[in-house]
Amino acid sequence: MSYKSGRHFLQIPGPSPVPDRILRAMDNPVIDHRGPEFADLGQAVLAGIKRIFKTESPVVIYPASGTGAWEAALVNTLSPGDRVLMCETGQFATLWHELASKLGLEVEFIPGDWRHGADPQAIAERLRRDDGHQIQAVCVVHNETSTGVTSRIGDIRRAIDDTGHPALFMVDTISGLASADYRHDEWGVDVTVSGSQKGLMLPPGISFNALSDKALARAKQARLPRSYWDWGAMLASNATGYFPYTPATNLLYGLKEAIHMLEVEGLDHVFARHQRHAEATRRAVQAWGLEVLCLNPAEHSPVLTTVLLPEGHDADRLRRLILERFDMSLGAGLGKLKGRVFRIGHLGAINDLTLLGTLAGVEMGLACAGVPHQPGGVQEAMRFLADR
Amino acid sequence: MSYKSGRHFLQIPGPSPVPDRILRAMDNPVIDHRGPEFADLGQAVLAGIKRIFKTESPVVIYPASGTGAWEAALVNTLSPGDRVLMCETGQFATLWHELASKLGLEVEFIPGDWRHGADPQAIAERLRRDDGHQIQAVCVVHNETSTGVTSRIGDIRRAIDDTGHPALFMVDTISGLASADYRHDEWGVDVTVSGSQKGLMLPPGISFNALSDKALARAKQARLPRSYWDWGAMLASNATGYFPYTPATNLLYGLKEAIHMLEVEGLDHVFARHQRHAEATRRAVQAWGLEVLCLNPAEHSPVLTTVLLPEGHDADRLRRLILERFDMSLGAGLGKLKGRVFRIGHLGAINDLTLLGTLAGVEMGLACAGVPHQPGGVQEAMRFLADR
Amino acid sequence: MSYKSGRHFLQIPGPSPVPDRILRAMDNPVIDHRGPEFADLGQAVLAGIKRIFKTESPVVIYPASGTGAWEAALVNTLSPGDRVLMCETGQFATLWHELASKLGLEVEFIPGDWRHGADPQAIAERLRRDDGHQIQAVCVVHNETSTGVTSRIGDIRRAIDDTGHPALFMVDTISGLASADYRHDEWGVDVTVSGSQKGLMLPPGISFNALSDKALARAKQARLPRSYWDWGAMLASNATGYFPYTPATNLLYGLKEAIHMLEVEGLDHVFARHQRHAEATRRAVQAWGLEVLCLNPAEHSPVLTTVLLPEGHDADRLRRLILERFDMSLGAGLGKLKGRVFRIGHLGAINDLTLLGTLAGVEMGLACAGVPHQPGGVQEAMRFLADR
Amino acid sequence: MSYKSGRHFLQIPGPSPVPDRILRAMDNPVIDHRGPEFADLGQAVLAGIKRIFKTESPVVIYPASGTGAWEAALVNTLSPGDRVLMCETGQFATLWHELASKLGLEVEFIPGDWRHGADPQAIAERLRRDDGHQIQAVCVVHNETSTGVTSRIGDIRRAIDDTGHPALFMVDTISGLASADYRHDEWGVDVTVSGSQKGLMLPPGISFNALSDKALARAKQARLPRSYWDWGAMLASNATGYFPYTPATNLLYGLKEAIHMLEVEGLDHVFARHQRHAEATRRAVQAWGLEVLCLNPAEHSPVLTTVLLPEGHDADRLRRLILERFDMSLGAGLGKLKGRVFRIGHLGAINDLTLLGTLAGVEMGLACAGVPHQPGGVQEAMRFLADR
Repeated sequence: MSYKSGRHFLQIPGPSPVPDRILRAMDNPVIDHRGPEFADLGQAVLAGIKRIFKTESPVVIYPASGTGAWEAALVNTLSPGDRVLMCETGQFATLWHELASKLGLEVEFIPGDWRHGADPQAIAERLRRDDGHQIQAVCVVHNETSTGVTSRIGDIRRAIDDTGHPALFMVDTISGLASADYRHDEWGVDVTVSGSQKGLMLPPGISFNALSDKALARAKQARLPRSYWDWGAMLASNATGYFPYTPATNLLYGLKEAIHMLEVEGLDHVFARHQRHAEATRRAVQAWGLEVLCLNPAEHSPVLTTVLLPEGHDADRLRRLILERFDMSLGAGLGKLKGRVFRIGHLGAINDLTLLGTLAGVEMGLACAGVPHQPGGVQEAMRFLADR
Repeated sequence: MSYKSGRHFLQIPGPSPVPDRILRAMDNPVIDHRGPEFADLGQAVLAGIKRIFKTESPVVIYPASGTGAWEAALVNTLSPGDRVLMCETGQFATLWHELASKLGLEVEFIPGDWRHGADPQAIAERLRRDDGHQIQAVCVVHNETSTGVTSRIGDIRRAIDDTGHPALFMVDTISGLASADYRHDEWGVDVTVSGSQKGLMLPPGISFNALSDKALARAKQARLPRSYWDWGAMLASNATGYFPYTPATNLLYGLKEAIHMLEVEGLDHVFARHQRHAEATRRAVQAWGLEVLCLNPAEHSPVLTTVLLPEGHDADRLRRLILERFDMSLGAGLGKLKGRVFRIGHLGAINDLTLLGTLAGVEMGLACAGVPHQPGGVQEAMRFLADR
Repeated sequence: MSYKSGRHFLQIPGPSPVPDRILRAMDNPVIDHRGPEFADLGQAVLAGIKRIFKTESPVVIYPASGTGAWEAALVNTLSPGDRVLMCETGQFATLWHELASKLGLEVEFIPGDWRHGADPQAIAERLRRDDGHQIQAVCVVHNETSTGVTSRIGDIRRAIDDTGHPALFMVDTISGLASADYRHDEWGVDVTVSGSQKGLMLPPGISFNALSDKALARAKQARLPRSYWDWGAMLASNATGYFPYTPATNLLYGLKEAIHMLEVEGLDHVFARHQRHAEATRRAVQAWGLEVLCLNPAEHSPVLTTVLLPEGHDADRLRRLILERFDMSLGAGLGKLKGRVFRIGHLGAINDLTLLGTLAGVEMGLACAGVPHQPGGVQEAMRFLADR
Repeated sequence: MSYKSGRHFLQIPGPSPVPDRILRAMDNPVIDHRGPEFADLGQAVLAGIKRIFKTESPVVIYPASGTGAWEAALVNTLSPGDRVLMCETGQFATLWHELASKLGLEVEFIPGDWRHGADPQAIAERLRRDDGHQIQAVCVVHNETSTGVTSRIGDIRRAIDDTGHPALFMVDTISGLASADYRHDEWGVDVTVSGSQKGLMLPPGISFNALSDKALARAKQARLPRSYWDWGAMLASNATGYFPYTPATNLLYGLKEAIHMLEVEGLDHVFARHQRHAEATRRAVQAWGLEVLCLNPAEHSPVLTTVLLPEGHDADRLRRLILERFDMSLGAGLGKLKGRVFRIGHLGAINDLTLLGTLAGVEMGLACAGVPHQPGGVQEAMRFLADR
């Protein structure tokens, strides 16, 4: 076995680096998930996670990856053959589409170029044409992890409201929660789907559904078969701080610590920090003369930045070189972007110097790989960060 | 907050105490689940877990609790309205029944008294009457965590074979794997369901389906909707050591260490150790003049021992007293056994002295709670353990 | 490499088992020992450790074992050729004697039988005969780790006071602090020596000198060469929370947590717990028909119990057998007690069930080794512990 | 309490960042330091540390800071009033001088400007004038942590040999070992002093004396009082893997892991890595238009770089600003350099991106603090690092 000196730079857009405080919180003996000590833990995390989603409604915690929470959102609210409206914002929207189809739902996919967020007007227009209210749900990805484009959830809510259409509004903010501003109640989202390994700074293994009264009402009629994902059994047990089946106890230890850390820093401060790092990153990309994938300045992700390589240059080769020479992981281009882009994660437990080390790794990698660019990206990011 | 001096005795039948080696293995930075380092980890655990199940066929690893793995076994192999045969061995068999019903399956439940394992002859008899082969699957719980009774899986296999019935054979050994002898291939099981937090000595959060060719063939026709649990996508990704969605990376670190520890000790030695501790426990119970729930000596569980209290004595009051005075968690009576029994877990990372501390806690608890009994149970267990 | 299932029983009289909370507190990144964050840590532990010693005077913390703190006590207060009075309570008193001799001090050793504490009247008598006040210091071991006998420090103080002799009074409570009642100020001790790996529940690596004004005054005239151990440089730096050379930072993290844990439980509760476990242990020894080394009931140690084997039986063989068969470490007979006794540590982070597991290991070991004894020791200890 | 997002940059010249692997190795239960398991640990680290010092002679391991190991080197080899020759290379040489004086030795101090290493010719010249061989030892600091200047130990050895003077040669490489090339045997050093918290990547708390036959022979006549530091008792116990008093067990766990990591990477590779990072750092300093303290290119330290600020600028204010804004610790100017320099540590468990983050923190700090400089230092370091 070989070691690399120093700490790996895990700059993919999730899993993000897990702080020592959280790893240590998890590194504790398992307790009886039916005992009184557990109830305190359960109630603490169930209450705390609501504050992170900014909701007064229940949040369900699954021992599952984010993909499981997607499935849960659908099977709890829909029936076989139901029609849902989705928006092609990138690879993860595409995967959600696939998942829904596998479950027997009819998916309508508003096409997109993977360089913009979901279009509120396109959604509204489609809903207006849906006279019979066949569309049961609108599903949007808040922060597209494959593109670095953020959809404007508040605007989409208003656009839906303008149509008076009764469809449920479901949002995936797996990679957005606790990094990008998110307001489940204020934005009238019915089911928000999220996961642990991004802004919450936890290892992967638990995921979330934030609910609304409307979603809970629909759950009563929904006929897709469900058991593991069933909100009803969850909420019944959660009322006293327990879970209907064995929860991922040690991740809940970590979740408690993560919520504490986020609240001590303050969510607004957390969001501002991510915006500042994202801006520094974009300035570096611009200085290099490269193109950011996201085309709408109002939709730049605070979580990650996706960079297009010039034609004829393979982004996966660049990433491999950077991994080998500088011990840094960057995100690959996914789906139709494979080989054409790389993604810089700047979320979670990082700081200015981590970010500058990251950008330095990219800039040196571009040089080593012979990708045409101007030096000076790190310099530009430093100028920005030193200024404010 | 208050501390109790010393280490809590977690003597429930799972989650079992997690060894320091495993907690420390998990307490490591998350890595890129799409990078080359991950593939090594993935391949190591996917190969290793097959040796623990004693199978040459693939084992699927879910980021989910054991309940999820139950659901996975059913949705991958069955279609809406399919008939399955289950055996009422206790509370977990009952829950599996409920789960299957929720998914739209027709469950036939061979009744039981919760004091015996599944009856091979009763199963064979029912299959013989199933001329049209309506029954698609026989589902049995190997080690009933609610009763401490182990079903004889090899005998059941032979009984099914004698009927020539083509039903799939599915077994839940969530609390049996890596504590009780188990042989997926030799016993011709089609889907074995298990979890991490028992004999594998891990925290809860991942679970397993061990497969057979026959199960894989059935999966092609099965029409229950599935996506998260879908074996197909899993096996395709697993081929190169990866997973189709973000895995619970840190639990996989722990799984690698657990497999290593089990193999260094030797599975046969692990099984013998559990049998020895179970025998010592039963001798203590006998010396106390109390009754072990399991009535068939051939079916005593090596994992846990369930003890009946005399009429008029509340087992939950006893457990609460033991928790408060001696900082030990014991398992509660579940379902129809609530308040009538308590369960002593003697599985996983324990040794002779842990077991004797455990039995001492029970014996002192019986005295403190005024439960009629003879002292001398610990003495008897010591005599047994010192002898061999 | 081979693993033993379960957790080793470390029942030597120190190092004692380190609680997970303390190991995790230590498992954190090192910080700049000259930076502002360190000052907070330094001030917290320097203030907290005074409460544990029950003193208003300074306590010096060395990166050193307890032996170093012995040396520090002597070199800060004495000059070459100075006469000191020590009491032969056991092996550690003998080692302190040797150390003092190596440093060029003249040691007078009041002989003892290793089965009693230091005799207040013998000390007083010797001091009365010291007309010219040649004796500069009286040095006593509070809790003799080699014998399980505790000297009565308060009585010795009164005996010294009665003589009006001005000698310094130095006490080693390396294995007593935070397990046995100890009162530096009330008992008028001038220098108390202690270490981390016993009642403080830390790994070994730091040790202590608690001081008095009188000791500080003597330090000004003392002429034994000193630099590393010099109180002056320590106290000057400690005033602002720092140390004159690099401290053992991670052990200080642990110390902070240990002080917190002791104060949440309450020192009086901690002392009572140790007394209760010691009494249970002695009752077990009595039930076995074996002899406790300590002959004076007023001097039984709450920290450890030393057990004499019948003539012709080798205690080291017994200990080896117990280690191999039951994975428990017991303390060996030291010095002239080698092979004749074994020592049971019952200090620090243990509880009733740990103690009973420990006693069960001893009782089974006696049986396996063929040491003549009556069974029933564990039974007797259980009866005692269940009663109160 | 407030948290800072991300990981603190600990870029002082020691303690250096402790790798997770080492923290986890230390985060394990303490074992019986008199038991058989300990002997394996003791023998492994005692053998391994010799390979790091490049010596066939014994290395003594103290539970103490590096300062203790300095004291040990002197008290084991010298007698009261002995004359030693030291060289004023900086603050740590000055402290060693003070320590020796406190112990009653006569120190001759060859003056220096803190910008050069010890001068071989000056040493030789002084020894030549010492006709009566009054000088018992020559003491040199290999890597002056206060200045970033490395003395040429091999050259000094040759210079001493040329004089035929029999003085012992003692070297402090506390901050050099395992970062800068060091050869105890080849360079004929009699006592090498080192510590854990620098190139060995451990927390502070253990320190070392590497010996020679000549040093061991001198120890027999040396008359400074000693007990804790006595090599004789140490070597006697070490022969079987044990220690004469309780060792810092958990740091020994870490030491075993550290030696393993260094040997897997290869010491030559480790040294080359440090040289490369030092060169990158100096290029950055040069690009900023600032001055490196070390004036002799042959004596640049691979461990740290000390940077002079322009007249009128306070280095401590700069460091404070960088700590507050960028969460990075840099080393202060010590002794007569206070406020005039800052020190960048680039030792131990770091990599290219950590170093560039570090240099970015410095460059932004210079800008924020209004210190006159040219931007472009990071750019220059990147150019160098990307090239090779």
